[in-house]
Amino acid sequence: MSIYDELKFNDDGLIPAIIQEQSTRRVLMMAWMNRASIEKTIASGKTHFWSRSRQKFWMKGETSGHTQTVKDIAFDCDGDTLLVQVEQTGAACHEGYKSCFFRSVEPDGKSFRTTEPPLEMPEEINGKK
Amino acid sequence: MSIYDELKFNDDGLIPAIIQEQSTRRVLMMAWMNRASIEKTIASGKTHFWSRSRQKFWMKGETSGHTQTVKDIAFDCDGDTLLVQVEQTGAACHEGYKSCFFRSVEPDGKSFRTTEPPLEMPEEINGKK
Repeated sequence: MSIYDELKFNDDGLIPAIIQEQSTRRVLMMAWMNRASIEKTIASGKTHFWSRSRQKFWMKGETSGHTQTVKDIAFDCDGDTLLVQVEQTGAACHEGYKSCFFRSVEPDGKSFRTTEPPLEMPEEINGKK
Repeated sequence: MSIYDELKFNDDGLIPAIIQEQSTRRVLMMAWMNRASIEKTIASGKTHFWSRSRQKFWMKGETSGHTQTVKDIAFDCDGDTLLVQVEQTGAACHEGYKSCFFRSVEPDGKSFRTTEPPLEMPEEINGKK
């Protein structure tokens, strides 16, 4: 049985992919894949996504060098979400943070705080584009 | 500034929430929240979701007892995904597995294997409903 018999894509042909750093178990980001980007991710060993805003296929780190080497691809009971274990080079977030999840809700339930310093300045990353 | 100024809900008023077990850093599941379920999650300290298939508001574990106590709520740079740290009681997956991500793609890139034994039988969980 193939994974493609189990996976359920949404009406746009997409499935969300949670990216986790295998060594630290840190959740780095969430992005969308279509079938072609899953196949490319598996074949190349580097994460490839579908950009909904740009309607474009992209390899993570293709301009910044912040690639993700794939270690494992899991999928959930409903087959509608992927969990990809990776080895991350540099910052996963385009704003220079290791993880895109660098802000947390405060105890008041409304305000929020930044929970870590950036690894790099966004200009450095953008400059590499 | 409020988190609700930063969060972006999709056309259905929903945002995906990744649920991670804080103690083990295991990713347990992904489900959808709307603004009311986020507010309820924050106010109660237990995860609440919106079921797209049932069009219904639900507290995780309301029938099975497998509740999730919220430890932290983070959101990503784009404000379109939540990452919720929890303390999980029992199995997170309705199929009896600790995590919904209990299957991984094999090296051939097509077949898959189950990567862990279930904690409970689904009948036990369903029987509690």
